[in-house]
Amino acid sequence: MLSEFEIVARYFAPLAGAWPGAYGLLDDAAVISPAPGNELVVKTDAIVSGVDFPAETTPDLIARKALRVNLSDLAAKGARPRAYLLDLIVPGALEEAWFAEFAAGLARDQQEYGVTLIGGDTSSTPGPIVVAVSAFGEARAGRIIRRGGAQPGDALFVTGTVGDAALGLGVLQGTRSAISGPSASFLVDRYRIPQPRVGLGPALVGLATAAIDVSDGLVADLRHLCEVSQVDAVIDAELVPLSPAAQEAIAGDSGRLIGALTGGDDYELLFSAPPGAMESIRELSRSLGVPITRIGQTASALQAGKPHLTVRDAAGRPLAFAAEGWTHFGRAICARQSPA
Amino acid sequence: MLSEFEIVARYFAPLAGAWPGAYGLLDDAAVISPAPGNELVVKTDAIVSGVDFPAETTPDLIARKALRVNLSDLAAKGARPRAYLLDLIVPGALEEAWFAEFAAGLARDQQEYGVTLIGGDTSSTPGPIVVAVSAFGEARAGRIIRRGGAQPGDALFVTGTVGDAALGLGVLQGTRSAISGPSASFLVDRYRIPQPRVGLGPALVGLATAAIDVSDGLVADLRHLCEVSQVDAVIDAELVPLSPAAQEAIAGDSGRLIGALTGGDDYELLFSAPPGAMESIRELSRSLGVPITRIGQTASALQAGKPHLTVRDAAGRPLAFAAEGWTHFGRAICARQSPA
Repeated sequence: MLSEFEIVARYFAPLAGAWPGAYGLLDDAAVISPAPGNELVVKTDAIVSGVDFPAETTPDLIARKALRVNLSDLAAKGARPRAYLLDLIVPGALEEAWFAEFAAGLARDQQEYGVTLIGGDTSSTPGPIVVAVSAFGEARAGRIIRRGGAQPGDALFVTGTVGDAALGLGVLQGTRSAISGPSASFLVDRYRIPQPRVGLGPALVGLATAAIDVSDGLVADLRHLCEVSQVDAVIDAELVPLSPAAQEAIAGDSGRLIGALTGGDDYELLFSAPPGAMESIRELSRSLGVPITRIGQTASALQAGKPHLTVRDAAGRPLAFAAEGWTHFGRAICARQSPA
Repeated sequence: MLSEFEIVARYFAPLAGAWPGAYGLLDDAAVISPAPGNELVVKTDAIVSGVDFPAETTPDLIARKALRVNLSDLAAKGARPRAYLLDLIVPGALEEAWFAEFAAGLARDQQEYGVTLIGGDTSSTPGPIVVAVSAFGEARAGRIIRRGGAQPGDALFVTGTVGDAALGLGVLQGTRSAISGPSASFLVDRYRIPQPRVGLGPALVGLATAAIDVSDGLVADLRHLCEVSQVDAVIDAELVPLSPAAQEAIAGDSGRLIGALTGGDDYELLFSAPPGAMESIRELSRSLGVPITRIGQTASALQAGKPHLTVRDAAGRPLAFAAEGWTHFGRAICARQSPA
């Protein structure tokens, strides 16, 4: 069995080779600076085996999910990803092959997203695998897209399709056994390997008034955006983009539709923009090949406190939600599960 | 029970209040930039319950240890600490009081070290508590103290005293029951609550040729420094500074002395400097009130590969080590234990 230092030298140091200030992972710390006129945008998120991914997930998918959920947050702020730190907390008994596959997953995503490992820490644990990533992006100083900038009357948009990941998890957990074949594979992939919108995010700077990534669930994340922006919002359920596989699984059942609207892990971008930006957004969607759908609009918040969110069905009737999304503990638990 | 969002709002957002770019922890990411001419120095380290601290450790001590072990690395690089990100992975059933005490510990250390929480993530786990911190410091561009800068003929120095923390852990684990009273309290405190040398570190820029913090054990960390610097080293065991409590516990027993030289968790600084810097270092020690002791020197590395480290006893005979320090997995395990 390799020592901690041998594992770092063999599998992780090569991932840091392109960053001079990572010193080959042979120092206590790394250095990073934004380009002149830019600032660093930083985000950390940890994933836990058995909570954020099934225990049987392959090491390369664990690695890529850990990295990508952070890149998704950077994208939501309009920042370009550059580098990351990694805390890898694993049982002492893992085989060398596990680390090899984990590092290979990171290598693949470093290539895909143009990011570099610049430091990290490996620890042993008697418990489940935990992977914490701190990601660094770069944006023009003072120009990130905030959560709190939505104005009353803005249009609300979402990228890609929502609800897929929650359905995919259901397939993995065996609660959605009616889904099979290519639809099942598609949905499971959507759960396992997020596709952060790193190209679109920076292009939304100057167009979007507010943005958030859809990780807890569309309705829950819309609430986060509305709370900080102090606006109400209305979305039309029938405008919410669903993949063919999700449409087939939901089959017009409103309970299942609600599951899709509140299921987490899609890692799409939800953003607001003034109606006048619509044509530019359509143009961006075309040029980047990223589907963007208008799903509703914001309104003045009439009451103090909690913003009022309405999700209307095709007949204009408001849908009722037992829970709006995923939360790690406390009252609003709606566990990482497939739509009912 | 409070939700994840309520806990963040009540206990963690106040810790971020002083940093405009943390947006009250109400956004997906935070922004940070070094002052002109400076660069950011970044480090991440995670601690795990039952591995890096006893499961019965109070929340405020867990918080402070998690933060301080990272500040110690920044100090070793000569960087001034500024901010940090926090990943808090805890069982879902923790009481609100736990979070209150954890945050109070952070608040206390934010005051002490002038750092600010700028972002984080809370996750639930079926396993032990894990706290990962990514710390940000600042240093003049190109001026951090590296591990690899030691030159043959440099003097080797260590701050404070070494071996205390390992003895303190022994007291906690009941393997050092002969130690009691104020000595026991002192040693346990040395284990529980590191005192990172944040004042000294930046003052060593321009004096130290290489530095590392003593977290794995004095001999193991000296090896890390020598490996990257490509130098051999000799240290005199009787010059290694021991606290009165450690001297009493070791009582001239060479096995126990070896335990002190290889025990981890002291978070002192080990550094090299040319002999001509001696007077300036003495002056720094006096002005900052930080004990600094010369314990040996480096020499040219004669052979390729592993540097040759010699630890001599008072009679000039080399001491033999079964293991040089702590490592998380693999062959060189010497568990986080008290000196034998």
